[in-house]
Amino acid sequence: MKDYRPLELPTQNHGQRDYGIVSCEGGICAAKGVRAAGVCAGLRKEPGRLDLSLVALNETSVCAGVFTQNRFCAAPVQVSQERVENGRACAIVLNSGNANASTGAPGVQVAQQTTALVAEELGCAEEEVLVASTGVIGVPLALDGFVSGIPQAVRALDDTPEAAHRAARAVMTTDTVAKESSCEVELPCPNGGSVRAHVGGFVKGSGMIMPNMATMLCVLSTDAPLTSEAAHDALLSAVGETFNKVTVDSDTSTNDTCVLFATGDAGGDPVGVDSLAYPAIAAAIRWVCEELARKIAADGEGATKLVTVDVLGAANDEDAETVARSIANSPLVKTAIFGHDANWGRVAMAAGKCGVDFDQYNVDIDLLGVPVLRAGLPLPMDEEDLLRRFEEDEIRIAISLGEGEANARVWTCDLTHEYVTINGDYRT
Amino acid sequence: MKDYRPLELPTQNHGQRDYGIVSCEGGICAAKGVRAAGVCAGLRKEPGRLDLSLVALNETSVCAGVFTQNRFCAAPVQVSQERVENGRACAIVLNSGNANASTGAPGVQVAQQTTALVAEELGCAEEEVLVASTGVIGVPLALDGFVSGIPQAVRALDDTPEAAHRAARAVMTTDTVAKESSCEVELPCPNGGSVRAHVGGFVKGSGMIMPNMATMLCVLSTDAPLTSEAAHDALLSAVGETFNKVTVDSDTSTNDTCVLFATGDAGGDPVGVDSLAYPAIAAAIRWVCEELARKIAADGEGATKLVTVDVLGAANDEDAETVARSIANSPLVKTAIFGHDANWGRVAMAAGKCGVDFDQYNVDIDLLGVPVLRAGLPLPMDEEDLLRRFEEDEIRIAISLGEGEANARVWTCDLTHEYVTINGDYRT
Repeated sequence: MKDYRPLELPTQNHGQRDYGIVSCEGGICAAKGVRAAGVCAGLRKEPGRLDLSLVALNETSVCAGVFTQNRFCAAPVQVSQERVENGRACAIVLNSGNANASTGAPGVQVAQQTTALVAEELGCAEEEVLVASTGVIGVPLALDGFVSGIPQAVRALDDTPEAAHRAARAVMTTDTVAKESSCEVELPCPNGGSVRAHVGGFVKGSGMIMPNMATMLCVLSTDAPLTSEAAHDALLSAVGETFNKVTVDSDTSTNDTCVLFATGDAGGDPVGVDSLAYPAIAAAIRWVCEELARKIAADGEGATKLVTVDVLGAANDEDAETVARSIANSPLVKTAIFGHDANWGRVAMAAGKCGVDFDQYNVDIDLLGVPVLRAGLPLPMDEEDLLRRFEEDEIRIAISLGEGEANARVWTCDLTHEYVTINGDYRT
Repeated sequence: MKDYRPLELPTQNHGQRDYGIVSCEGGICAAKGVRAAGVCAGLRKEPGRLDLSLVALNETSVCAGVFTQNRFCAAPVQVSQERVENGRACAIVLNSGNANASTGAPGVQVAQQTTALVAEELGCAEEEVLVASTGVIGVPLALDGFVSGIPQAVRALDDTPEAAHRAARAVMTTDTVAKESSCEVELPCPNGGSVRAHVGGFVKGSGMIMPNMATMLCVLSTDAPLTSEAAHDALLSAVGETFNKVTVDSDTSTNDTCVLFATGDAGGDPVGVDSLAYPAIAAAIRWVCEELARKIAADGEGATKLVTVDVLGAANDEDAETVARSIANSPLVKTAIFGHDANWGRVAMAAGKCGVDFDQYNVDIDLLGVPVLRAGLPLPMDEEDLLRRFEEDEIRIAISLGEGEANARVWTCDLTHEYVTINGDYRT
């Protein structure tokens, strides 16, 4: 008699257990030395809707950033990418309603002028202000709204959870909820004792979301005294394991931007990549990123479900990743989930189509924790039980290829009528 | 003053002009020596629906085939692929309602038994009968329906257009129309004079359609006396330029099968790849394949529009193809077309996201024949004019990358509510 136990999966967000990371309030303002604001600058058609977000640091701070790899990268990406290389910044200004992408040289000028307005108000150098935009592509962005909006945002700057929340809301487009996360972590000091540090942030992203890139727009902050190198390494590694594992629709934005500020206001010695405290703060940054990444997938345009795809037993990491993305991006898998249809044959199809080599007679598949295929043979299914399990908020798909030891996990959502509705009349 | 003429595109289906190919009646039976039937074998839930298709050749004939590259290739694919290597066949039996995929060794046995039933009725060798299936994956296929259905199909075999049409209808699943095509072409003889040859076929395919594979199920026939090598070469080349350029949803079936039979009944000397007549008959085969490929895209699940994507000025063929597929598979491009939204920014996004190198400031884009982007700068749009153009059945998108001389064309369709409806409750 065969034993059809579910596949054993890696745990989610392990940092919590390993470093005593605990969730806290405050979003982007959880870290000391960070103020935020979200205001209505009239950049959007809907009157009164928040559309301009500002995050300002009390002192010029360490910063790191990752950006879209789309060849049609937007004007603000061109500006911010260059400035992040200096490793220092004092603010980032973000707008929704217009992506300032495919807008040519005039678009770059507007992005620069936007940062100049912020620099003037804050009394810092223009080169220390970053900029990010989200919204429609290919429509010239006017400076007008920023001229009045930026002074208004500077006046509204505050370090409260409410201010953080307004900043998170002002970058929403088709997002249905503001997506924030923050946590505390104890950083060990070389000479004994410890320092309590915070990491927080918000993210905007709902459609045009695809792995292998930064997410849409994400601002992160910590008060840990990270060196520039440590901030860069921790961000790159966290993004690679979290945002780059999310795919809503396989489309990659022209505007993806993810920046991390480190104010150092938690105190203590500088934390470099070789410091005793580095693993803990890197885990805390990853923890926040994973929270935000899962929120993006769950809030995918029109989504009703967060979907986690685990690939086990691949020959190597690349194969595992390719199969996981192939399943997560398959419109047929995603519509089946929307329809609460335990059609795991589409998971098999999606695994098989992507050019990764395996023997179908070694493959196991679990759907919603239920074994449905073992060694290439379908198992009898209790459809009633599966229908009940489809009521859960998170749908788990796991496939073992039987080729090796490599695993991968990606997050996605289902494909629904609402996705078509949203994207069938977004611009007009 | 700049000149904003539309981009110059290659013509469609050029064989017609170059070889005097003319459309004719008859579908798969247009070629002499071919009979077909479509019957109801009770394999589907809907009573009375045609579900078993048979194409039989009067004599054992040359055959060639291409098959899915999906690692979860279905049982009938495993059986037919091996048999096609002999280069000779006398029949193919096809069913809808069950794909006989992910069904393990028992599935392979059922596929073999199906061909044995056909061989017995026709009095030919089992190894000369091919088999193909389409429908749900992962559900065991019972032989019962074939036991009564196959004798019934053999009795119904006929060489009329009506019989061809019933064969085409019996393989439909979510297809809304039977997809057939046939043509005549004059083949020059080495010693002067010519022979009138025919090519015909039908195809089934609507969802789970993606390039770089054969299409779902396609049966082609010609009465030209092709050698086995010539049949193989002509089929491979035609499929590469037509079916492999279609993408409905980026998902690749486990069951894709495309076979070509050459009866030789048109008379004349054998036609090899070096024969005087080869280019004309190869063009005729390509002509039929392009007709069928466009019909697949136009009948994509839930589609309201056929979409043709042309990429011009790429550095090489691979880049051109990658960009074309990236645009054609983008859910955001496809939903915008459904919404009659001239949101060409999504075309730019899709071109930029796929890893192909180009400079956005050299890019031109036309939508529906209207220049909308020149050298990376948006042009003013007449939205009324574009809305009118969206009423056309075929939507054309063209992008020039300004990198080189390579071009690519792919066909797809829009992404609609109906796609989600069809695939949200297909199995249950």
